[in-house]
Amino acid sequence: MAEPCTLGVDLGGTKIKLALVAGDGRILADRRLSTDADGGPGRVRDQIVEACRDLQEAAPTTPAGLGVGVAGQVRAADGVVRFAPNLGWHDVPLQAELQRELQLPVVLVNDVRAATWAEWRFGAGQGCADLVCLFVGTGIGGGIVSDGRILAGSSNSAGEIGHMTVDLHGPPCHCDNRGCFEALAGGWAIARRAREAVLADPGAGAVLRQLAADQGEELSAAIVAAGLRAGDPLARRIVDEVTLALIAGCVGLVNAFNPRRLILGGGVIDGLPELVARIDQGIRQRALAVAGEGLEVVATALGSDAGVIGAAAVALNQSQEKGAAA
Amino acid sequence: MAEPCTLGVDLGGTKIKLALVAGDGRILADRRLSTDADGGPGRVRDQIVEACRDLQEAAPTTPAGLGVGVAGQVRAADGVVRFAPNLGWHDVPLQAELQRELQLPVVLVNDVRAATWAEWRFGAGQGCADLVCLFVGTGIGGGIVSDGRILAGSSNSAGEIGHMTVDLHGPPCHCDNRGCFEALAGGWAIARRAREAVLADPGAGAVLRQLAADQGEELSAAIVAAGLRAGDPLARRIVDEVTLALIAGCVGLVNAFNPRRLILGGGVIDGLPELVARIDQGIRQRALAVAGEGLEVVATALGSDAGVIGAAAVALNQSQEKGAAA
Repeated sequence: MAEPCTLGVDLGGTKIKLALVAGDGRILADRRLSTDADGGPGRVRDQIVEACRDLQEAAPTTPAGLGVGVAGQVRAADGVVRFAPNLGWHDVPLQAELQRELQLPVVLVNDVRAATWAEWRFGAGQGCADLVCLFVGTGIGGGIVSDGRILAGSSNSAGEIGHMTVDLHGPPCHCDNRGCFEALAGGWAIARRAREAVLADPGAGAVLRQLAADQGEELSAAIVAAGLRAGDPLARRIVDEVTLALIAGCVGLVNAFNPRRLILGGGVIDGLPELVARIDQGIRQRALAVAGEGLEVVATALGSDAGVIGAAAVALNQSQEKGAAA
Repeated sequence: MAEPCTLGVDLGGTKIKLALVAGDGRILADRRLSTDADGGPGRVRDQIVEACRDLQEAAPTTPAGLGVGVAGQVRAADGVVRFAPNLGWHDVPLQAELQRELQLPVVLVNDVRAATWAEWRFGAGQGCADLVCLFVGTGIGGGIVSDGRILAGSSNSAGEIGHMTVDLHGPPCHCDNRGCFEALAGGWAIARRAREAVLADPGAGAVLRQLAADQGEELSAAIVAAGLRAGDPLARRIVDEVTLALIAGCVGLVNAFNPRRLILGGGVIDGLPELVARIDQGIRQRALAVAGEGLEVVATALGSDAGVIGAAAVALNQSQEKGAAA
């Protein structure tokens, strides 16, 4: 019998990644597209259908299903995308439409949960029954595996750890609350810190401003990371503040969930890899002894492929569960 | 066949509660003792053994087992009490000793997790597969049920939600970190707020000082609650600050775990029952829409019996699982 494989899609506001993925998580073939978000949900669906058909032709065997990770809220019961801010979508029945077009079992999941699934099964979380994946990108999201199961919550939104309050009196967040974890340490919040610091003291901000000008960019987390590498004291101060916030949030996660492994990824962590060791050290100083003992703090292993691999793995898992139940 | 029943013990630093509990959570008989903590673990064990024998005589049928809820850290594998600060215990093999003395299957659990189990099965959480129990007493603890299972974590300490950081720059906590949920809103922290407020403005603190003097007590959460009922503006201000902290912590819990029901209990909530509605309202204003929809915020139903009922229920569950596996 040929090796089982499934299709995975990582659907974001600017890019769509697609892959044919083997049962052991290897990518057998892949495609990348720019999301035609302006074309509306029908156009994006057609982009996915076309690329999937193309990948199906490359498949050694008929894919057992398709998993789609979406940057947004997905209703578990029927795979409707309830809200995807980066796509501007509300209530799009993407699962049913893809199923009809491709004549394959399709499952929709949140993109961060898909990435968590991939790290758990094939990446930095292999063999671990209790883990938290924390992705620090523009925003902060996460996935939680407890006693060998990934948490979904009552309306499929468990893991929104970017919106745990970490600083009661902290700055406003995009979610309309204040002091959220991501409002202190997400990429957009790091950019805000940098803008405010440069505005408050233009002299101290000269290096960051110059770096941004050189690259023709706005101040961003990446510019702060570049400033840090260039030895800029202001960048160091911003990174130190962000590190304290990351430690505070991670200590809360470790105390509340008691994971065996805390897996750190996303653009901010990738751009500042020193953060992994600093967060590790901070947790050891501040978490409850019982919660921190035996804890491993590690970086993600699959990088930006985690979303597409995880989406495919969720589809494979679902086809196997259905097979077992049949 | 006679109705199954089990014994439950709620072992605290000052009191031991014991009960014979039916399979439906009803207390058939109970006992209360003062903990002879000064007598050491052997003496406390003997107190439990003696009272259990007494309850066994009252039992309509042979109890199927004994569950003990302990205010401390319990090793799941062998029921050793690793650390129980209120008893002054380190590494006490209570489960094995009770089993030998009583010739019954014995299971040890953390007391807050036992109370969560009771509320889930027989109290305010009945029929709910996703819930968080938050107990605000002297400290803050909790239990989490997700997708029909109670979370344990990798070293059996999941649910230490009193030590989620809620105010990065907040006051020191007993755990040596700062800004923990319980350092802002637990009973001991409310007492600290009251002491500091009275010290800062003795005139404004006159009502609270008088209430404490009348009752021959120190300033405490109970005195603040009494001040609030007496219309004291300082008590109102303290309660308002505590409420903001409770809302911030609960919003984080709701966003991270996405429960269907948030169950609030413990002495501080019991003393200030208005908090349930205020926390409910605050969550609706501040939590993510997807996480808050369909959420119910309710008070506990079993009060101070939850610990002993839950411990007995955990023992019954374990005896039934073993029966099913045999």
